[in-house]
Amino acid sequence: MPELDLTVSSADLTRVICDIPSVSDDETTLADAIHAAVSLLPHLDVVRDGDTIVARTNLGRAQRVVIAGHIDTVPINDNLPTRDVVENGEDLIWGRGTVDMKAGVAVQLKLAAELADPRVDITWMWYDHEEVSSDENGLGRLAENHPDLFAGDFAILGEPSNGQVEGGCNGTLRAVVRTHGRRSHSARAWIGDNAIHRAAPILQRLADHIPPEVEVEGLVYREGLNAVRISGGVAGNVIPDLCEVEVNYRFAPSRSTDDAVAIVREVFAGFEVEIVDIAGGARPGLDAPLAREFVAAVGAEPRPKYGWTDVARFSALGVPAVNYGPGDPLLAHHDEERVPVAQIDAVEKGLRAWLSGS
Amino acid sequence: MPELDLTVSSADLTRVICDIPSVSDDETTLADAIHAAVSLLPHLDVVRDGDTIVARTNLGRAQRVVIAGHIDTVPINDNLPTRDVVENGEDLIWGRGTVDMKAGVAVQLKLAAELADPRVDITWMWYDHEEVSSDENGLGRLAENHPDLFAGDFAILGEPSNGQVEGGCNGTLRAVVRTHGRRSHSARAWIGDNAIHRAAPILQRLADHIPPEVEVEGLVYREGLNAVRISGGVAGNVIPDLCEVEVNYRFAPSRSTDDAVAIVREVFAGFEVEIVDIAGGARPGLDAPLAREFVAAVGAEPRPKYGWTDVARFSALGVPAVNYGPGDPLLAHHDEERVPVAQIDAVEKGLRAWLSGS
Repeated sequence: MPELDLTVSSADLTRVICDIPSVSDDETTLADAIHAAVSLLPHLDVVRDGDTIVARTNLGRAQRVVIAGHIDTVPINDNLPTRDVVENGEDLIWGRGTVDMKAGVAVQLKLAAELADPRVDITWMWYDHEEVSSDENGLGRLAENHPDLFAGDFAILGEPSNGQVEGGCNGTLRAVVRTHGRRSHSARAWIGDNAIHRAAPILQRLADHIPPEVEVEGLVYREGLNAVRISGGVAGNVIPDLCEVEVNYRFAPSRSTDDAVAIVREVFAGFEVEIVDIAGGARPGLDAPLAREFVAAVGAEPRPKYGWTDVARFSALGVPAVNYGPGDPLLAHHDEERVPVAQIDAVEKGLRAWLSGS
Repeated sequence: MPELDLTVSSADLTRVICDIPSVSDDETTLADAIHAAVSLLPHLDVVRDGDTIVARTNLGRAQRVVIAGHIDTVPINDNLPTRDVVENGEDLIWGRGTVDMKAGVAVQLKLAAELADPRVDITWMWYDHEEVSSDENGLGRLAENHPDLFAGDFAILGEPSNGQVEGGCNGTLRAVVRTHGRRSHSARAWIGDNAIHRAAPILQRLADHIPPEVEVEGLVYREGLNAVRISGGVAGNVIPDLCEVEVNYRFAPSRSTDDAVAIVREVFAGFEVEIVDIAGGARPGLDAPLAREFVAAVGAEPRPKYGWTDVARFSALGVPAVNYGPGDPLLAHHDEERVPVAQIDAVEKGLRAWLSGS
C-alpha cells in the first residue's frame, strides 16, 4: 500500500494521489492509503464505510462544518501519470483527476492533518463512486448507514469551481417525448403514418425554447432544455411507427421537482411525455451565517453552480452547502484535464484562514 | 429430392412448392426439384446457373417473351405448412410464400409443361435470392453470366398484383441528411450547439412535403419521400454533436436517377446530404406492341406498380416488362400471407389464352 505524507505541499499531494489510479469501482487502494494516513492523526476520530473515510474533530465547538470530496475519477485515457506543464507562464499539473477532484481532496487531506485546533469542529469526508450512477454514490450510502455523520451547520464540497464559491445547483430531469404512427411499406407510404415526421414540432419547440435565467437568493441560475437523444425507424423500406426524443431539463433550484415536471409537460403539450429521471436542485444557502462568514473570509464573489453536484444531498438534509475547489469545471472529464498550482494554493489558504480563524 | 408433378392444378402445385421451404440462401432443394421436372420436358432447353433455372422453347417464332419468378421467400414465422382457409366464402391458400410469389411460380411451371407449341417463343426463368440485398439477386447474376438469355420482346414478372397488370415501377433512393453541432455538458448547454435541435427543419420539410403523382405512359405513379430512421445523441448529459435522418425517396420512372438525386438535394438544401443507395425505376412499357396485345388478352386495366421490382432489370436491358401475378402485394411478407385460389386460376387462364393464341 502506498503511504501518504500529509505534510508535503497540496500540489505535491495532488500529484501523489492522482498517480494512485482510482477510477470508480477501483478506489480501494487510495481509500486504504487515506484511511491509514488519517488514522495516525490523534485529533481525528475515523470511521470507514466501504471506501468512504470520515474523519472528525470532536472539540466541542459551537458549530460544525462538513468538508467533502470524492476520491474516484472517470476512466483514464492515456493521461496518467501526471505531468508538470507550463501554459502562458502558469504552472499546472496535468492528468486524470487533477481537476475532478483530487487537487481539492489533496487540500482537504493536508488541512485535516494540519488543523488540530480549528475554530469550528470539522467533519472531513472522502467518498467513493461519485462518477457513476447516483444509486452507487458513496455519500448516498453513508447518509443511509450513518446519517448522524451528516450533522453540521454548513458544508463545503471541494468540486472544481476555479477557486470561486459556487452556491447550490440546478436540478435535472430527463423525459422521453414520443410520437406514434403506423407502419407500412415505404413504397406505399400513404397507407402508413410517419412517426418521425410527427416529431417535427418537438424539435421545433426545443429549437425555439429560450431558457430563462432565474435569480435565487441573489445568484442567477441559467436553465437549459435540450434533446440528448433521438431514435426512430424500423428498416430502410418501412414507414416508422415510433419516434422517441429524450430531453434533459436543467431547472433552477427555486423550482420543485413537481414544477419542473409541469413545465416539461407544458412545453410538449399534445405529445406523450414519460419522466425517466429527476433530481431536485439545491438552493445556494448563502444566507446561512456560516456561509456568509465563509464567503467573506475567502474573498470570493459567489456564483451559481449549473451542474448537479452532491451539494444537493446536503441541501436535502437541511445543511447549507457550497462548492469550493481548485480547477476549471469545464476541464472536468476532459482528456487534457489540468489544474493551476496557484489555484490549489489559493484554495488551501482560503480554507485555512477561515477554519483556523487566523 | 421431392418430385414435382406439373400436371396437377396450379393451386395444388402452389401448395406443394410452398411446402418445400426455400428461404433466401436455402433454395437448392426447390431449385433441384424444378430443374429435374423441367428437364423431362422435350420442348424445353434448360440452363442452370446456381439455383436459377432457365427453360426455353426454340421454335423459331418471330417474337420471344420472358416470364420470370423468384423461388425464394422471406423467413418462415410459424406459417408453414400451408393451410386451406375460407374467408367470406372465398377459398384461399394460407402460408409463407403463397403470395410472394410461389402461386405465380406454380402457374408458370404448369404452363411451361403444358405449352409445347406457344405462338411466341418463351424463356421461363425461376431465380434465387430476390428477397435479400440487390447484389445477391439471382436475376442480376444471370444477366452477368448469360446476358444472351435476356433477349426478348417483352417480359412478364409474376410478382403479386392481384391478377392485374402492373406496369413498370417507381425508383428508390436512400439518403442520409445530417446536422452537426458541438458537444458540451448538458448543464452548460449554451457552450455547445445541439445537432438534434438543428434537425427540426428536416422533419418539418418532410412533414410538409406533398408527394406528386406523375403520369408516365398513361399510368399515374404516386411518389413518396419519407424518413425511415433518425438517430442522434451521446449520453443523457451531453449536448449531441450529430443527428442523422435517413430518408427514402420513391420516384416516378420518368425521372432519371440524377433527377432524383437533384430533387432530394433541393428539398434538403442547406443540409449535408449523402446518397447511400439508388435504383432507377422502370417505365411501364405498355406502348410496346406485345404489351398492348397482352393487356387486351388478359382483359385487365393496367395499373402502376409502386414498389421497386425486378422489372427494372429488364427495363434497363431494353425489354419492356410488367408485373402480373396472383396475390395481394399488401400481404407480401405478412405472417398471414394468403392467396385466393380464384386469382391463381384467373392468372393461369389469362397467360394461357395469350400465349397459346387461343
